[in-house]
Amino acid sequence: MLNRSYYPVPMSTHRAVTLASRPEGWPEASNFALKQIETLAPADGELLVEIIYLSVDPYMRGRMRDAKSYAAPIELGAVMTGGAVARVVESKSPEYQAGDIVVGDLGWQEKAVVPAKAVRPVDSSIAPISTALSVLGMTGLTAYFGLLDICDPKPSETVVVSGAAGAVGMIVGQIARLKGCRVVGIAGSDEKCDYLVDELGFHAAFNYKTVDHYRKKLAELCPNGIDCYFDNVGGPITDAVFMLLADRARISICGQISQYNNTKVEQGPRQLAQLIVHRAKVEGFLVFDYAERFPEGLNELAAWLRDGKIRYRENVVDGLENAPDAFIGMMQGDNIGKQLVRVKPE
Amino acid sequence: MLNRSYYPVPMSTHRAVTLASRPEGWPEASNFALKQIETLAPADGELLVEIIYLSVDPYMRGRMRDAKSYAAPIELGAVMTGGAVARVVESKSPEYQAGDIVVGDLGWQEKAVVPAKAVRPVDSSIAPISTALSVLGMTGLTAYFGLLDICDPKPSETVVVSGAAGAVGMIVGQIARLKGCRVVGIAGSDEKCDYLVDELGFHAAFNYKTVDHYRKKLAELCPNGIDCYFDNVGGPITDAVFMLLADRARISICGQISQYNNTKVEQGPRQLAQLIVHRAKVEGFLVFDYAERFPEGLNELAAWLRDGKIRYRENVVDGLENAPDAFIGMMQGDNIGKQLVRVKPE
Repeated sequence: MLNRSYYPVPMSTHRAVTLASRPEGWPEASNFALKQIETLAPADGELLVEIIYLSVDPYMRGRMRDAKSYAAPIELGAVMTGGAVARVVESKSPEYQAGDIVVGDLGWQEKAVVPAKAVRPVDSSIAPISTALSVLGMTGLTAYFGLLDICDPKPSETVVVSGAAGAVGMIVGQIARLKGCRVVGIAGSDEKCDYLVDELGFHAAFNYKTVDHYRKKLAELCPNGIDCYFDNVGGPITDAVFMLLADRARISICGQISQYNNTKVEQGPRQLAQLIVHRAKVEGFLVFDYAERFPEGLNELAAWLRDGKIRYRENVVDGLENAPDAFIGMMQGDNIGKQLVRVKPE
Repeated sequence: MLNRSYYPVPMSTHRAVTLASRPEGWPEASNFALKQIETLAPADGELLVEIIYLSVDPYMRGRMRDAKSYAAPIELGAVMTGGAVARVVESKSPEYQAGDIVVGDLGWQEKAVVPAKAVRPVDSSIAPISTALSVLGMTGLTAYFGLLDICDPKPSETVVVSGAAGAVGMIVGQIARLKGCRVVGIAGSDEKCDYLVDELGFHAAFNYKTVDHYRKKLAELCPNGIDCYFDNVGGPITDAVFMLLADRARISICGQISQYNNTKVEQGPRQLAQLIVHRAKVEGFLVFDYAERFPEGLNELAAWLRDGKIRYRENVVDGLENAPDAFIGMMQGDNIGKQLVRVKPE
């Protein structure tokens, strides 16, 4: 038998975006590198896939940091991690065949080799396949479990959502509306606020970039106090919410995007005593902890989507080479709804 | 029938401590006044009682403030509110008779007229009657429900208690020990720490007044992270705990005594992102919300006490006129265990 190392076959390669350096503060294009890397052959139980849509999300900023968290940091020079929708090119697993659409953590690259167990199939008959990264994917599930499991909103309660025009926030607000709540969104532009109220049925929204006094504005929009708060943002917006809690308020901490680019820990008012006064609860969560209940969440989200009860929005940028800019723009709040990168036409 | 207002009977009076002025920052003796006030006659359904023991507690500092909270502020010139153990002198209720011992919110005074419904009987055969204000009263119940209901500690978990040598903290730590946890106390003197470890069975304790780096010390004493934190104190101690949470940590916010005398809101590091990383929960509570379950809590505490499984300590000062100093001393951490004022010998 020939030793292949002496008779190399021409190496197949694909493009990937790697972590070139760790950001200090805000991420910049120079923190990323576009490289040509070897495309491995799938082993038994693995799939070779070509990536169609790539997701960019705030949590990735944490992975770029060299610090222990719930997941290990991305190594310098390694491919950026990230959820993606892809088409199976070659299957070494009985569960999939070439042409199937799958979703999983495939990275910022054009192709990937992954264990079949690490992806799940995407049913393109339900909705466009891109939704497997948005409303029928991680961000939709994040909204679903983070709101329903932690806040458990009741009819006529007031629900406030920060980062309300983002991929998670817009679904949170719509689910809260379906549950009969008064829904108030906080977002970073008038266009976003108009969209939330006019298109998605939020009862009110305000632009934190043009409102000076968050607490006063929130008090005006939430005359009965805030029963539930779904926090994507943190910082002074969250400070204001803490001062307006209703008794037995529930706060779901999904993200703290206002803090992710700080080079040192920001200071803010100590407000834990508010939790005593109102017997309130604050709880952080990670959507991955709900993995066993994903089918439940996806079924319900798909039903709401099919019945026109919730809507979604995606912002698609073309070309893997534009993924860093799409990520940076998303961190700056440029997008409404889910920010995606189209790596290859469907 | 004679109109009594024309033929006044000699007015009966008793001594009371009233709120003379609202503190700015730390409370001072001048914020209180000792007055002779009229002793009313009990109406139907009411009791006239003479107070034996009076409780001074951190929550009273909040009531001295002119701000809306879970309870209304004490009016200027009004008798200070506070729990007390008393003997019934005259009963206009079939539920009690003269000589019975009762406990309730009777105020800083020698006598009080209260509805019979507003007190509960004290069984002096179980333990000294003063315990109705400590381990078998509000502070014991606060420890019981705040720890068991919110933190729900499991065997071998690590439980940290701030204000550990106070009336609530020392019971929290002992209950956690009974539940099979590793218990670490934080207190304000070496004497307190020795007491916690040597007498109450805490596994470790440290003096926050002589330890410079709380986080380092806690990391040393809690090598597996902190599963449960019962917080009486807040501020930098709580900041340190937030950085050492174990996954699925539960934090019970009982008090924030380090903040009660601030004249403006203190700033501290923003740490809500830690709740996401560890999927941790922070919840505030008020013991009064558990009123329906008080019998359960009292039964269990009494059984532990009887079986020698928990111990308590009280610090008794004599004389109603010394109640302000006892309160101020308690706020400064002078006492170990429950601070009481003996208004009248048993």
